[in-house]
Amino acid sequence: MCIDGLRNCNGFCFGAVASCQCDFAAGSCQYLSGAHGLQALGWPWKMAHAFQTGHRTHSCGELRKEDVGQLVTVCGWVQMSRDMNHFAFVDLRDRYGITQVVFPKEGADEAGLQRYEQARNLGREFVVKVTGKVVERIQKNAKRPTGDIEIVADQLEVLNSSSTPPFKIEDATDANEDTRMRYRYLDIRRNPIKDAILLRNKVTRLVREYLGDLEFCEVETPVLIKSTPEGARDFVVPSRMNPGQFYALPQSPQTFKQLLMVGGLDRYFQIVKCFRDEELRADRQPEFTQIDCEMSFVQQEDVLRIFEGMIRQIFKSLCGHEFPPFQRMEYSEAMDRFGIDKPDLRYDMELVDLTEVSKGKNFKMFDDAELVVGMCCKGIGSWSGKKVKDLEKKATGQEVGASALVWLKINPDGTYDCSAKKFFTDEDYVKWVEKANAKPGGCGPGDLLLIIAGKKLQTQESMGKFRHLMGTELGLRSEGFRALWVVNFPMLEWDEDEGRFTAKHHPFTSPWTEDIEKMVSLDHKDPKLAEVRANAYDMVINGVEVGGGSVRIHERPLQEKVFSVLGFSKEEALAQFGFLMGAFEYGAPPHAGLAFGLDRLCTIIGGKATIRDFIAFPKNNMGRDTMINTPAAITSAQLAELSITTTVDEDGKPKASGYPA
Amino acid sequence: MCIDGLRNCNGFCFGAVASCQCDFAAGSCQYLSGAHGLQALGWPWKMAHAFQTGHRTHSCGELRKEDVGQLVTVCGWVQMSRDMNHFAFVDLRDRYGITQVVFPKEGADEAGLQRYEQARNLGREFVVKVTGKVVERIQKNAKRPTGDIEIVADQLEVLNSSSTPPFKIEDATDANEDTRMRYRYLDIRRNPIKDAILLRNKVTRLVREYLGDLEFCEVETPVLIKSTPEGARDFVVPSRMNPGQFYALPQSPQTFKQLLMVGGLDRYFQIVKCFRDEELRADRQPEFTQIDCEMSFVQQEDVLRIFEGMIRQIFKSLCGHEFPPFQRMEYSEAMDRFGIDKPDLRYDMELVDLTEVSKGKNFKMFDDAELVVGMCCKGIGSWSGKKVKDLEKKATGQEVGASALVWLKINPDGTYDCSAKKFFTDEDYVKWVEKANAKPGGCGPGDLLLIIAGKKLQTQESMGKFRHLMGTELGLRSEGFRALWVVNFPMLEWDEDEGRFTAKHHPFTSPWTEDIEKMVSLDHKDPKLAEVRANAYDMVINGVEVGGGSVRIHERPLQEKVFSVLGFSKEEALAQFGFLMGAFEYGAPPHAGLAFGLDRLCTIIGGKATIRDFIAFPKNNMGRDTMINTPAAITSAQLAELSITTTVDEDGKPKASGYPA
Repeated sequence: MCIDGLRNCNGFCFGAVASCQCDFAAGSCQYLSGAHGLQALGWPWKMAHAFQTGHRTHSCGELRKEDVGQLVTVCGWVQMSRDMNHFAFVDLRDRYGITQVVFPKEGADEAGLQRYEQARNLGREFVVKVTGKVVERIQKNAKRPTGDIEIVADQLEVLNSSSTPPFKIEDATDANEDTRMRYRYLDIRRNPIKDAILLRNKVTRLVREYLGDLEFCEVETPVLIKSTPEGARDFVVPSRMNPGQFYALPQSPQTFKQLLMVGGLDRYFQIVKCFRDEELRADRQPEFTQIDCEMSFVQQEDVLRIFEGMIRQIFKSLCGHEFPPFQRMEYSEAMDRFGIDKPDLRYDMELVDLTEVSKGKNFKMFDDAELVVGMCCKGIGSWSGKKVKDLEKKATGQEVGASALVWLKINPDGTYDCSAKKFFTDEDYVKWVEKANAKPGGCGPGDLLLIIAGKKLQTQESMGKFRHLMGTELGLRSEGFRALWVVNFPMLEWDEDEGRFTAKHHPFTSPWTEDIEKMVSLDHKDPKLAEVRANAYDMVINGVEVGGGSVRIHERPLQEKVFSVLGFSKEEALAQFGFLMGAFEYGAPPHAGLAFGLDRLCTIIGGKATIRDFIAFPKNNMGRDTMINTPAAITSAQLAELSITTTVDEDGKPKASGYPA
Repeated sequence: MCIDGLRNCNGFCFGAVASCQCDFAAGSCQYLSGAHGLQALGWPWKMAHAFQTGHRTHSCGELRKEDVGQLVTVCGWVQMSRDMNHFAFVDLRDRYGITQVVFPKEGADEAGLQRYEQARNLGREFVVKVTGKVVERIQKNAKRPTGDIEIVADQLEVLNSSSTPPFKIEDATDANEDTRMRYRYLDIRRNPIKDAILLRNKVTRLVREYLGDLEFCEVETPVLIKSTPEGARDFVVPSRMNPGQFYALPQSPQTFKQLLMVGGLDRYFQIVKCFRDEELRADRQPEFTQIDCEMSFVQQEDVLRIFEGMIRQIFKSLCGHEFPPFQRMEYSEAMDRFGIDKPDLRYDMELVDLTEVSKGKNFKMFDDAELVVGMCCKGIGSWSGKKVKDLEKKATGQEVGASALVWLKINPDGTYDCSAKKFFTDEDYVKWVEKANAKPGGCGPGDLLLIIAGKKLQTQESMGKFRHLMGTELGLRSEGFRALWVVNFPMLEWDEDEGRFTAKHHPFTSPWTEDIEKMVSLDHKDPKLAEVRANAYDMVINGVEVGGGSVRIHERPLQEKVFSVLGFSKEEALAQFGFLMGAFEYGAPPHAGLAFGLDRLCTIIGGKATIRDFIAFPKNNMGRDTMINTPAAITSAQLAELSITTTVDEDGKPKASGYPA
């Protein structure tokens, strides 16, 4: 049966109506019920209400004062059930909110009394379906969007029961992470995780809208690709059809997106899973997601402009934050000022070069050093000896790695106290403080100047880490967003272990035109190669590298040269990347691109501490999913089909006899 | 230097301007040049022209008559270069189109003469950058959107040269597929492949818009999951950190999307890569893409309504095709009428049940048969004996698999001719034709009635395949789109090889409530289990199953029962799917969903023959990517780290001595 103005078709009612009265409970027009301003349908297959289904008329998040008087059906989880003055109150929760349902005892008929009894005994997380009338609440709950109303239940159906969950579905939880991971499906019911997952969805939607509007075409590149020894360790996949051979999972779609540029696609992006079989210390996952982008016929400036725009748009939409135009900072400047290539600009505490003003006083630590560098911490000059001692431990600990810490207290009365006072006088201190004072934030009475010394790069990096620690300790890292581009990275860095230069970014990054000469003329171990600059750039927000990229090489001879500088033999280069160099021979356009780490980006936008919150089903630091219990042994039949065997037994111990290689 | 009304910031000019005159060639305001109605910028980081970059002002597809007089720069590939009457003409191509560039010899200064010489000698697929003035063409090319104009070149720069490509970059190609795959980056430059990739991007954009508007949340489920023996063969990934253990790549995110429903996410979707290690005959790929969807608190009808709406929207937007409401057809009806569960409704030729009217005439083939089924082919009653003989071969060939074919010609004069005329009379034929005539399309003079017989299901399936072949042969399968839902599938099908019932859809599909009793009461090998119906549905367009799904089981006891019917021991069920059944104990909501095969869907929308056209980098039928040459051997160091070894040598031959298991 269809109401006026609607056509009946295949059991559905549809048509363009502006409003309608329809009795859901009676079963007629089940897809078009609801009294309050039925939206014009536009598309006949859409519901009158967005959340309406055969099981419900509304979600638990949408009923308001305007709905009072309506007969509605809602479904959800029992957040809690309580009995107060002969009323059973049930808080019913779904993704969209919580609605209070009430079951009165007074004046109830027999069925009503049964419902009342049933309701007051509902366990947490039971799944129920309730039909009833929307009424205005006497005691409103201003904290809830639905807090003006409640539903007086006419019908109650338990759709599913629930055992007592291992932790409560509440915003704050004291469940440990192991338990939360094993029951991730319950963890996802909690607002902090649910909201993180919904936020991630919003971020990807905004990315796709922004890039789609600029004619970027999303292309899926393959997941089963080829293992290459360069870079991080690959996950591999044995091929049954090609015995003894393996696919690898991509660490990034780098070469494929470049091939798409050779293919003339002009503007590519992909939100794509990438894989690295690395140690999972810190906040890493074996599978992670990149927003991967590439453009043809562009210069570095185009990439920065377009993707700065994208990030601005996202932060504006989701955080209401409008960035000023992103600062550009040279890699070398970032190292000099912050001791790191991804500086957190939310606080000052810049590095102070004290090399000139600290030498020649017979203090060996400074005299021997290539660099003496200080950092002024505001307002902690009054810290106790014990707390300062702790700082010394921090400075020389594994995380910072300085050989020793020297400190200078600038007392409120203008006097000084220094941990190396045997060697220095007030005159020296004045010079030090002068240097520190020239930096943003300054340095004066009540402050503490921390100083370390040693080899230049190592000392800068140590102080950069120390600055990070102190920023956290002093609570400077919590507020707002600060973004910048770090540009002009070095092309190469020396790898002590491998005894060769490796690519700072990756082997496909183009060097500065004026530096190509060096690459051509110098031996591939010449230290001067460290001076070659790359057309590479990183986007940094709040001290986190959220994205990075480069202008690529698009000419075969230069690409060959770079491989040779990186220590590849001609044969190795050909075997691994011959397909790309081959492609460069058929009209490769100039191109450039970058990739964002989606997990990290979301973590910053959402203001959380761990990327795991933004991953629906993360793995632990042993790469395990404890919920589904993987990885796991596979059958010997599977191994045989794949022409492989394991060299360990069921306990992971090496098997007695090794297989002849 | 910035023009009026624009602010200069970090080297960019920006501001809200409606139009501007700006000299691109002079290098000022490089990001805001262009004379014709500069679009209001809205977002300061967007270009004046969508395709403008540091290298170009316009794409090769956008210049029109209105642009005449402008100084522009375009980049692209040389489609062709020719010299006519002292003018060199170059067709410059990019993703967006082709623009003609002209280099005049007459009246040229020395630089102009050089450019002319350079231009007329440009090779195919060279990448060039041209600056010049837009002029109106005298001889317009109505076939090209840019055909009213050409660019008179002032500057020409070769950005990259090209070797002669192995095939021409033209719509029609005679290059074989192997060559096209090895040079896929060149194949992608061809319109048919480029357009297919762009179409796929449009499809996914529409899907995301439609589902996003309905509050479906896109969630990434893990790629490194757990191997399960049920269903197709898994690809596996050895875990380095967990020696002897393996991840598997997902065949679909089925259990994860159900866990998201248990987690209260309510509406989930994902456009996601799935993996099956199957033989790659026909049009299959080891990695393929699903539009994967799931909803809570819904009934089958909700799923059909919402996803029918999605498909309608896509076809309307991309093909201008408006479907009538999709027909619903029972599985059994589809088998009876078309001999297949994915009937192509673009043509009639329905199956005609002749069992009753064909028995008792001492024709053993019919008398012994459970089913005698005919199919009337219109207008081929006059086919020669040879052509009819070919039909007999087809019917008994591997593809159709009938034991024999009987045919009846209905001659134009009303007489009959039958291949089994020893046994039958005109009286019989009249009855047969009567039956056939009752079907849509009818059967009469000039037609040919084809008949096969045997066991019911097998005979239906054979005739279904025969119908498909004849539909192709008679050219009935080419036009338009016909969609339907096939519903009410059987829950189980008997697997002769395994000697047990397997799930027709998958083990998580719910049976009809009224049929649960059978599953509970019957032994797991009882043939009556074949009668259990499932809440499962397939969407079929033009004879292709583009999507399918089911209402899921959400209660542990029923799920346990289904596993036991499928022959799982309690231990096996727990080991493989314990996590899901565990989740069902904590308040699992009723839920249902489906998945579309994106590759197939695009193939139908794009009207192509192969899904490979819609995959940027497909693999061949040995699972190889011949462009990057994978799969490939990995190093022994990699194998050792992964605690595995191969049981074959470099040539894929088993190694001399097996490794002790």
